[in-house]
Amino acid sequence: MTNEARVLKQIERRFDATGEEIRAAIRQPSVSRTGEGIAAMADHVATELRDLGAAVRLVPGLHAPIVEGLLNVSPALPTLLFYDLYDVQPADGQTGWIVPPFDATIVVDDAGRRRLVGRGAFNSKGPLIGTLATLRAFTEAGATLPCNIRFLIEGEEEIGSPSLGGYIATHHTELAACDAAFIPYFGTNAIGKTIIRLGFKGLMPLEFHVTGGDWGGPARGDLHALHGALVDSPSWHLVRALASLVDDAERLTLDGLATLTPLPTQQDRELTAAVAAEFDLPGYAGEIGVARLKPGASITDLMFSNTLNIDALSAGTIEAGDNAATLIPRTARAFADLRVVPGVPPATVLDLLRAHLDRRGFRGVEVLLRSSYPASRCTPDEPVVSALIDACRQHAPFVQVFPIHAGAAPMHVFTDVIGIPYAFGGVGHGAGAHGPNEYIMMDDIVPFMQSVAAFLFRFGAAPRRMR
Amino acid sequence: MTNEARVLKQIERRFDATGEEIRAAIRQPSVSRTGEGIAAMADHVATELRDLGAAVRLVPGLHAPIVEGLLNVSPALPTLLFYDLYDVQPADGQTGWIVPPFDATIVVDDAGRRRLVGRGAFNSKGPLIGTLATLRAFTEAGATLPCNIRFLIEGEEEIGSPSLGGYIATHHTELAACDAAFIPYFGTNAIGKTIIRLGFKGLMPLEFHVTGGDWGGPARGDLHALHGALVDSPSWHLVRALASLVDDAERLTLDGLATLTPLPTQQDRELTAAVAAEFDLPGYAGEIGVARLKPGASITDLMFSNTLNIDALSAGTIEAGDNAATLIPRTARAFADLRVVPGVPPATVLDLLRAHLDRRGFRGVEVLLRSSYPASRCTPDEPVVSALIDACRQHAPFVQVFPIHAGAAPMHVFTDVIGIPYAFGGVGHGAGAHGPNEYIMMDDIVPFMQSVAAFLFRFGAAPRRMR
Repeated sequence: MTNEARVLKQIERRFDATGEEIRAAIRQPSVSRTGEGIAAMADHVATELRDLGAAVRLVPGLHAPIVEGLLNVSPALPTLLFYDLYDVQPADGQTGWIVPPFDATIVVDDAGRRRLVGRGAFNSKGPLIGTLATLRAFTEAGATLPCNIRFLIEGEEEIGSPSLGGYIATHHTELAACDAAFIPYFGTNAIGKTIIRLGFKGLMPLEFHVTGGDWGGPARGDLHALHGALVDSPSWHLVRALASLVDDAERLTLDGLATLTPLPTQQDRELTAAVAAEFDLPGYAGEIGVARLKPGASITDLMFSNTLNIDALSAGTIEAGDNAATLIPRTARAFADLRVVPGVPPATVLDLLRAHLDRRGFRGVEVLLRSSYPASRCTPDEPVVSALIDACRQHAPFVQVFPIHAGAAPMHVFTDVIGIPYAFGGVGHGAGAHGPNEYIMMDDIVPFMQSVAAFLFRFGAAPRRMR
Repeated sequence: MTNEARVLKQIERRFDATGEEIRAAIRQPSVSRTGEGIAAMADHVATELRDLGAAVRLVPGLHAPIVEGLLNVSPALPTLLFYDLYDVQPADGQTGWIVPPFDATIVVDDAGRRRLVGRGAFNSKGPLIGTLATLRAFTEAGATLPCNIRFLIEGEEEIGSPSLGGYIATHHTELAACDAAFIPYFGTNAIGKTIIRLGFKGLMPLEFHVTGGDWGGPARGDLHALHGALVDSPSWHLVRALASLVDDAERLTLDGLATLTPLPTQQDRELTAAVAAEFDLPGYAGEIGVARLKPGASITDLMFSNTLNIDALSAGTIEAGDNAATLIPRTARAFADLRVVPGVPPATVLDLLRAHLDRRGFRGVEVLLRSSYPASRCTPDEPVVSALIDACRQHAPFVQVFPIHAGAAPMHVFTDVIGIPYAFGGVGHGAGAHGPNEYIMMDDIVPFMQSVAAFLFRFGAAPRRMR
């Protein structure tokens, strides 16, 4: 029996123990927004790492410590940076929960399958504790780890990782010495397809802010609407400025962005064609609750277009009874998220926005950019990525590789800041991140762990890249 | 000494008494929105009318009675319909008052002039009680009234006159038998110009409402922004639909509206030229708190353009710290007021809006119209109007006739519903309607009353129109 076979067997044997380990972690609330249970959960993770034999340290952060650890097997082996989070979103006051959010209840769904329901089950205590349990299975099976592992488990992810940048800057040398990063995820969707995403879009949270002032409009306060023929309206400026940014299909038409945006590569097109061949657009529309997608909607658009979404609009006051005073509001605001594809730097997009608006006379429209990050992705031939794809194919019936995900995630911290490739994913179904009744499937815990173990064996055996 | 000279003299003599009569009315709160003091104020007005010798009746309304009265002098004389209101806007909780709103305090301003400050001083207890005191001066001077007077004093004007339409329908015969209507007003502005407005724009309070549904967009609830490439956004629909309605100078460019809108007449152009010659655009901008008017802004635009103002915009949620979740909000709304010039029927404009939006694919944008009214105006050669212009010229140093006011007012009830012309105005300065520290100038009470008396003499002596 090979080491790998022994580990996979041990993962099956310790199923009950793993389930209880995950449930114990869910029962320990760790809400970074309030601080509830953060210290206890950091200790819980540190203890688990110590039990695995790792050298562990809690590095203080602004709101929660970063749990840092190292399992050093051999300098001849590649080193994996295992990134995860131990904090969760709040559940207090969130309606719709059918069980207490921190009880880790097992609920049988309509199809008779057992779900482990609780805040953090899916995002991310299931994958975090499941991965640590996988490492435990190596020890229990008497199998040496096939790679070194550096742990970076933060407790501020759900509040925007305010301490992570500083930590990376201070620890850049040892982080950059890792060969690749791994972020485990229950990546199997509701219809049983395991998706591996090679990358994520970048995110620019924008505010378009218009206040009457030197440029025009009401400079002192809201103004009676009768003056509208002679006085600029911040709301009209906002509406017209926004409208100038999209075409009839609400595609972003920011001046200069198209030439800046790399075309999908040959590999992108092949991967996209493979996804499109399997992708059920009407099924997707039904799943997200949309009666009619945009005409001509395609997977290529979803993956490879820069998009501008309006998150919120606000001007004036809507009173009880749906009345509004007939005023020119002095201030109008739109909050938007601009999602950029790989190769499009947020700072350049911000410059393009300013130029686009100025060119059209919207000097009064301020554009404020909050913390943004670029897109980031890896190619499928990257050893850490191909190891994950192969491991998932071994432990899941159907695996699809998305060249990029339409969702945004700050994975550039690995590729751009630390400077190493990453792989994101794993087998197993879960859902409901941030919402009520967040869950993972109990029967998917073993396949998840087996996919992680298989990944570690493949990663450890792969040729190391020259760096 | 003529009757008119005796009445004008008596108005001067009774200055102190009139001041106290106006102050007493201000001290009686009459807030139609809450009902506070409404019954007492209705009785107060009814008693004043009875003292003048009028036949008086309180006609119940939804929230406040209409005070109806008749002073019948002679069937040979013309009859004036005196319309006014005895209710006021609330002042409780309104910040900025430098004196108690219902104390009718006399405050000396920076220029050393006495202001009578209180809720209703300007809108409209000053003009109402001032006009009744003028009629009293006729009796005190032993002068017969030069016309018959029908009183229509409502107590629901500040909540949209919900009972007025029904009252007019029930009493149409006697109202239509009047020769003209008169609405007294302290029509002198802050720099001493007395403005007579021959008409008012019509008002269409609109809601543009977009909710995801059969047409597209999120049909179940807010949707994650990552789907934006494939899913229509109600907010984008709203923004694009609104932007399609105006040009670069934010002028309304609704399809078909221009051809529907009558051009200013020769008389309009002459009156406008006279106003423009005197009008101080930079002074106006400074007064309303605007650093820079629209390029090319003109009085003609202010008076003769249909305008669309955005009163409020709302979509999604702006959270504390100016964050907004990256969601496609299911619903987006804009509240707007569309101001129409004379000759443009609101119902037709609503049809044009629907067609304009449908033509551009905005089927998902609903347009809701609340109670609207058309513009209304009279020509300066109308006897009731020329009587007021002449009377004001006699008692004010500088009178300007505006062919129409950019503000909207439902004066169509006189011209279109009852079917009689009207005159609106008078000498004297006041300001601050609906705001804190509403006031009239104490020294303007006599000129106001004298302009009203002179108006009555001119109206009574004018040839009656064939009706």
